[in-house]
Amino acid sequence: MHGLGNSYIYIDLFSFHLEESKLAPLAIDVANVNTGIGSDGLILIHPSEKADVGMRIFNKDGSEGKNCGNGLRCVAKYAYEQGIVTTKTFTIETKGGNVTAEVHLIGECVDEVTVDMGEPQLRREQIPMLGNPNERVIAEPFPIEEQSIEVTAVSMGNPHAIFFVPTIEQAPLSKLGPVITSDQRFPEGVNVEFVEVVNKQEMHFRVWERGSGITQACGTGACAAVVAAILNGLAEKEKEVCVHLSGGDLFIKWSKDSHVWMRGKAETTATGVFEWTNE
Amino acid sequence: MHGLGNSYIYIDLFSFHLEESKLAPLAIDVANVNTGIGSDGLILIHPSEKADVGMRIFNKDGSEGKNCGNGLRCVAKYAYEQGIVTTKTFTIETKGGNVTAEVHLIGECVDEVTVDMGEPQLRREQIPMLGNPNERVIAEPFPIEEQSIEVTAVSMGNPHAIFFVPTIEQAPLSKLGPVITSDQRFPEGVNVEFVEVVNKQEMHFRVWERGSGITQACGTGACAAVVAAILNGLAEKEKEVCVHLSGGDLFIKWSKDSHVWMRGKAETTATGVFEWTNE
Repeated sequence: MHGLGNSYIYIDLFSFHLEESKLAPLAIDVANVNTGIGSDGLILIHPSEKADVGMRIFNKDGSEGKNCGNGLRCVAKYAYEQGIVTTKTFTIETKGGNVTAEVHLIGECVDEVTVDMGEPQLRREQIPMLGNPNERVIAEPFPIEEQSIEVTAVSMGNPHAIFFVPTIEQAPLSKLGPVITSDQRFPEGVNVEFVEVVNKQEMHFRVWERGSGITQACGTGACAAVVAAILNGLAEKEKEVCVHLSGGDLFIKWSKDSHVWMRGKAETTATGVFEWTNE
Repeated sequence: MHGLGNSYIYIDLFSFHLEESKLAPLAIDVANVNTGIGSDGLILIHPSEKADVGMRIFNKDGSEGKNCGNGLRCVAKYAYEQGIVTTKTFTIETKGGNVTAEVHLIGECVDEVTVDMGEPQLRREQIPMLGNPNERVIAEPFPIEEQSIEVTAVSMGNPHAIFFVPTIEQAPLSKLGPVITSDQRFPEGVNVEFVEVVNKQEMHFRVWERGSGITQACGTGACAAVVAAILNGLAEKEKEVCVHLSGGDLFIKWSKDSHVWMRGKAETTATGVFEWTNE
């Protein structure tokens, strides 16, 4: 399944057991496009005692991740369509905590899913970013390569540096992305986002992901961009904003309870049996 | 399925019809690792009036290819295991003509397949390479970037320039591959191969493929390398040579009737249903 081109192989562990020691090698093998199926990694859908359904995510290098917005939408689609859950709103256990999801149907199929992406963290020490630990970073001058641009910084569990630009086509993503992502002002690195605000309900978005470079979609980045726009008076709380990413559209709302909600497509590519010859 | 990491999605057209106009877009969509399954392209296995079974190959850009040694082995494995053919030696129709294949079993499964890769073409005009049209190119001085190395040129339906080196690790593949592949002495470009001969039955092989760059395996290249070794007295006709490629091993024999036979693995990765939403 994939969400905005972010593709994982999903294995249903409700009727199937996998040994813990096999998970990392399986993720590596199944994600290999030459000798496996090919994906960004492996997601296990499993029974949970803490929520209605559980998920674990393994990257293509075999490391385990905490969460993934695009993957959450796919897990929610699968759980509803397979009857694992029977209500349209339910909870998903992740390594980063429980997440609420709501499915939106066309007929009996799940077309879109809304997931609770949690509360943004805005203080420098939370992002983290050097400087006064309790201060927020909103349209702050950010000297880089002999120019000064303005940065707004937001954590959605991972750090984001958002830069507003007049036109997305002219955003210096490939030039400044790799420089800013490892800038020493962000001690843990940062995801770099350029955003063109069309109006209060619509924006264009391009991302340089920490550790990955330019990608088609970054769910937490789209959330951070909308939060940043609201902090700068370019969008409004409680109103959904359509974010155009390279891989497709996401609809983001920062609600009054401070949680950010993300709505978007989840799509099934293929179903079948992987013939794994684990040595 | 894949052969030495050269991976295609295979569709069985014995029980299923696909419109001609859908084939190119299907290949593009299914080969996309983000929104499809992910592969080097699409291979159709179809009924044939000219041979025991037919195959057509589409690259990931939707263009149709003539033939593919790694793909042929997989088609042969599928045809035998599914009972499309019932003898161990049979013929496969391709856009490049009929090919003879022989399956080698472990139990009831096809482990390896030998395919007839046809006759090498050795005259310059056949390769093609500039110079006396009827002359062969065997250990000919090849000045490039202020040094002179020796080239042997062989066509296996596509052009190959083979360079023997003392140790494969020190072969200047990434340095000279992109230069030689578009050298004007080869008017249609050339696949560039560096070969370390261990002994008359074993060699190491690295390839820069025309139009693709460094790849894990090139079946016609491995055949051309063994023919080149025999022409240079480094291997013998009628004796199988083990060629170590990055993606695995191939066993190549240049027989007395001048045909080159290639033996190697074919592996099934996964089986299932692709949910194609063609617009």
